[in-house]
Amino acid sequence: MSDQKDQVNTADNVGSDLPAAAAVLSAEDRADLVNAIKNKLHDLARDHSGFLEKLPPNIRKRVDVLREIQGQYDELEGQFLEERAALEAKFHKLYEPLYNKRYEIVNGMVEAENEGTVDKETNESAGDKGIPHFWLLAMKNNEAIAKEITERDEGALQYLKDVKWSRLEDAKGFKLEFFFDTNPYLSNSVLTKTYHMISEDEHILENAIGTEIEWFPGKSLTQKILKKKPKKGSNDTKPIIKTEECESFFHFFDPPQLPEDAEEIDEETAELLQSQMEQDYEIGSTIREKIIPHAVSWFTGEAVPIDDEEEEQEVEEDDDGDDEEEEYYVEENDE
Amino acid sequence: MSDQKDQVNTADNVGSDLPAAAAVLSAEDRADLVNAIKNKLHDLARDHSGFLEKLPPNIRKRVDVLREIQGQYDELEGQFLEERAALEAKFHKLYEPLYNKRYEIVNGMVEAENEGTVDKETNESAGDKGIPHFWLLAMKNNEAIAKEITERDEGALQYLKDVKWSRLEDAKGFKLEFFFDTNPYLSNSVLTKTYHMISEDEHILENAIGTEIEWFPGKSLTQKILKKKPKKGSNDTKPIIKTEECESFFHFFDPPQLPEDAEEIDEETAELLQSQMEQDYEIGSTIREKIIPHAVSWFTGEAVPIDDEEEEQEVEEDDDGDDEEEEYYVEENDE
Repeated sequence: MSDQKDQVNTADNVGSDLPAAAAVLSAEDRADLVNAIKNKLHDLARDHSGFLEKLPPNIRKRVDVLREIQGQYDELEGQFLEERAALEAKFHKLYEPLYNKRYEIVNGMVEAENEGTVDKETNESAGDKGIPHFWLLAMKNNEAIAKEITERDEGALQYLKDVKWSRLEDAKGFKLEFFFDTNPYLSNSVLTKTYHMISEDEHILENAIGTEIEWFPGKSLTQKILKKKPKKGSNDTKPIIKTEECESFFHFFDPPQLPEDAEEIDEETAELLQSQMEQDYEIGSTIREKIIPHAVSWFTGEAVPIDDEEEEQEVEEDDDGDDEEEEYYVEENDE
Repeated sequence: MSDQKDQVNTADNVGSDLPAAAAVLSAEDRADLVNAIKNKLHDLARDHSGFLEKLPPNIRKRVDVLREIQGQYDELEGQFLEERAALEAKFHKLYEPLYNKRYEIVNGMVEAENEGTVDKETNESAGDKGIPHFWLLAMKNNEAIAKEITERDEGALQYLKDVKWSRLEDAKGFKLEFFFDTNPYLSNSVLTKTYHMISEDEHILENAIGTEIEWFPGKSLTQKILKKKPKKGSNDTKPIIKTEECESFFHFFDPPQLPEDAEEIDEETAELLQSQMEQDYEIGSTIREKIIPHAVSWFTGEAVPIDDEEEEQEVEEDDDGDDEEEEYYVEENDE
């Protein structure tokens, strides 16, 4: 085998189209032609648009046969994806009654059947029904989600009654629903987050959309109201009021968006946005795939990977994200 | 609703275990107890080991019912995973004959049926059968894989006859097989790469193992043999020989490994290793999920995402990774 054949030439300037079939050629000419065809293939592969048209006819025919075979494959694959979706839907239906039972127990709508030994009168008089803070604690035991939850957020997240997920009608993406009990923070009874996917198998996100949260006045957890004391000797005695974005799990419902014109942003901004969108999708997927199907195991901590237990302690301690500037003080709630 | 209830106290020092049921209490005492129970839950949730044992009995019973329900869910989920695996296996079998046809055409073992118009005699005399460089070009059209392939690698990768994947027996992971025609680089006829997974759904890798490559003498693509000219005036006239690791796709078969004792490595090394293992898994998954099922579409470029086409040109130009130090020269092959 000649050295020449081993080296693949990737020069950019191979000349005009090659003849379809070689005429009578010397051995050396033939070897050159073989190499020229191969180089040509490499060059064509770089310019996909004209690739098929410029292939030598005999190779083009073989490629066309491969494309026919690919068509048969794609048909089978479509059938596979359909059957798999049907299988998932079938089991989603089977899971439903179990999710409903969980909901009723967590929210104290039914008592656990084997609870007969506990004095129900006393029990209820302590205002203690269901499992308090079930969803908040389940989510806090997942390291990735815990990082998003500030101490302030916990006040509102304790009112979570249920978290559900469902596929979108066209099977391209999924929706999360967070159901809230009546609470002093927000008036929405359900917050949704919808992930529209281009390809779910390849995890290619089209966009993510969240419910606009209706905060009660002064209760927003995604903004802080800061009052600045007027300077000493100033005539104006009213404090200067300023609102400021702050860290909060509830930003999950106002996810990062790609700008209309993607060309407008520079590379650094694009990378930051990409990483924010990935993190947002990661949180959504974790809630869908881990928390919802196994919530009680997260609540008890049984689902926590051994490796994470230690790290989690650290997260707890510095996750409130309160970085007030010294000259500002946080407004207390008026209620 | 009192302010106190809204604020979740996460102090670390809640006292001894709480009484199982409250005795007769004033309204204020009751509210305190409710808060104390909730705080206790938070504290317990941090220390998973004793969590269940330390729960107040009424809540413990509810949690136990949830755990029973979870057991039923897990059983259903196991059934789902089994049925899904069976579905995948069924279709893998249906794909097989199509993969075989592709193999025969790519390697010129059968001619495309509708190729009658081409003069077969001339065709073969040009040494041109099958589709030259099919797998190399298919892989090079994928941006992530193209980054791994150096110009030197192309010499060997052009001999690829087929690339296959299969699930491992226990369904925990998968195996890639790269079939090579007789070639002047390596004597293995097949190189395999096996990914053992702890959880495939969650993409948790246990380890990755590759075939040891039997390079022909002086033909290794993962090492360079460098000769240093002896210093002028030196008595020794023989060049100093040095081998050096170099960039190559073939490192794919010698993937990064976790050390036996994970505690031995520092954080920085651990992060680097993590990112290398992720990248390695990414390449393996891309070959399995994208290249193998749709190889002809990658070969023609039809599978290349529009966004990548531009970027790819740049990759082509600087992917050979040749950073020789000036005083060294690369040894030419002796053959």
